[in-house]
Amino acid sequence: MIGKKIDQMRLSDRAEFAKTVSESDVYLYAGVTGDLNPAHVNEEYAKKTFFKTRIVHGMLSAGFISTIFGTKLPGPGTIYLRQVVEFVAPVYIGDTITASVEVVDINVEKNRVIFKTICVNQEGKEVLTGEAVVSPPKALKK
Amino acid sequence: MIGKKIDQMRLSDRAEFAKTVSESDVYLYAGVTGDLNPAHVNEEYAKKTFFKTRIVHGMLSAGFISTIFGTKLPGPGTIYLRQVVEFVAPVYIGDTITASVEVVDINVEKNRVIFKTICVNQEGKEVLTGEAVVSPPKALKK
Amino acid sequence: MIGKKIDQMRLSDRAEFAKTVSESDVYLYAGVTGDLNPAHVNEEYAKKTFFKTRIVHGMLSAGFISTIFGTKLPGPGTIYLRQVVEFVAPVYIGDTITASVEVVDINVEKNRVIFKTICVNQEGKEVLTGEAVVSPPKALKK
Amino acid sequence: MIGKKIDQMRLSDRAEFAKTVSESDVYLYAGVTGDLNPAHVNEEYAKKTFFKTRIVHGMLSAGFISTIFGTKLPGPGTIYLRQVVEFVAPVYIGDTITASVEVVDINVEKNRVIFKTICVNQEGKEVLTGEAVVSPPKALKK
Repeated sequence: MIGKKIDQMRLSDRAEFAKTVSESDVYLYAGVTGDLNPAHVNEEYAKKTFFKTRIVHGMLSAGFISTIFGTKLPGPGTIYLRQVVEFVAPVYIGDTITASVEVVDINVEKNRVIFKTICVNQEGKEVLTGEAVVSPPKALKK
Repeated sequence: MIGKKIDQMRLSDRAEFAKTVSESDVYLYAGVTGDLNPAHVNEEYAKKTFFKTRIVHGMLSAGFISTIFGTKLPGPGTIYLRQVVEFVAPVYIGDTITASVEVVDINVEKNRVIFKTICVNQEGKEVLTGEAVVSPPKALKK
Repeated sequence: MIGKKIDQMRLSDRAEFAKTVSESDVYLYAGVTGDLNPAHVNEEYAKKTFFKTRIVHGMLSAGFISTIFGTKLPGPGTIYLRQVVEFVAPVYIGDTITASVEVVDINVEKNRVIFKTICVNQEGKEVLTGEAVVSPPKALKK
Repeated sequence: MIGKKIDQMRLSDRAEFAKTVSESDVYLYAGVTGDLNPAHVNEEYAKKTFFKTRIVHGMLSAGFISTIFGTKLPGPGTIYLRQVVEFVAPVYIGDTITASVEVVDINVEKNRVIFKTICVNQEGKEVLTGEAVVSPPKALKK
């Protein structure tokens, strides 16, 4: 239960995680974060907005990127240092979001890896782009 | 049910949201995002890590910033465009996190406002820093 | 799966439901209702209040009364018409609340039953008092 | 983080909170309160009832009123003393409920405010009516 160390990683290494975002995901996320913005939980309000229906919290999709770092690449033991996210298109309830990360720079001396991070919907449309900096795991403390 | 428009905002305008992060928050967030990194949901594993106990997902605290934008400042109707987050210290289950945002730049022509974004714990220690770009609400579509 | 009809009910008939209210109950309830009042979800704030710690939403305990009407007495098929609740003492996270209802009036002609409703904590202290009016079930539609 | 004091309140002051009630809201509420009345969580049973489909717990909508008192008007620090609710029409999963409260009496001497409380659905139909008594916040204890 320990992720890849920096000497096991290469440029262009890639991993992904995908999920269909349900109404219950959005409602639980709203409850946990307190973000009851009517754009997320009030369909009558949302109908009158530019998006015409409730949209998913952008930060919920951003969480899928953390899922990859913490469970796949590099995996457990990774320290998440920095994330830049650009919210480029709306996510709707019922959309299937595929988050992916790709190694774009490796700094062995500082034990830091830079990833390009992206989320696309079921039509391949980018909904979120960005970049992350993580510190891959070292050995677990004995 | 509409937030502040750009001409109602001033440099240094500020808002905050605070919550004690419960174990159930962490577990629900883990379930919604799929981030079952043992650092968050496996106390036996976590005991052997540098942090010695389970920590809260960094992106969960980042979500509190979105809560402010969507419900307080600017409020409903805001479009979230970009967020940079630096995870500078761990958040533990039971910590009370206060997220705050402060206007640092206003671009009326592009309808964009830049905020400094920060989360501190109950001891006032910064756990997350960053910057956001949002587009405040215009009138609801008729 | 049908509750007692009015001719099966007698004055002083009684039923109860009890649960230890967990932190996760309070947090889920906050998320569902949107009631993120800091008295319920912010321990640092709550420390400075009269109650000195987070308290449970009064309406959550009131919900236990509905549980009795809908599942025990009269049971499925009951129409809940009216509830008066007096919040007479705080409920704390971890308290075990016993809700009970007792028939105080029966109006066969209008098919209405009046109940005295009460919630006590693990020390027998009343935390909620009140009265309800319900319409017991008639036969299910064929 | 403190609500309006009684001298800041006027007759006819008003506030509201709205949410589309999702199936997950109903199921989480059922789990928290133990109210697994088949009218709320058994669609096959519900089809044969007068309402022909699952309905939302009346007390869940009543919770939205508490949300207003605790977070908006008067806001944090308010003590909820009494609530009368009349359940006048069913709420269905997917309905958007707008709760509103309006000041109808102010008793400065006793620090008590009486509100008319009401919930309507997306068609403006009243689903819940009633009255509440609250004690607005005084200064936080130092």
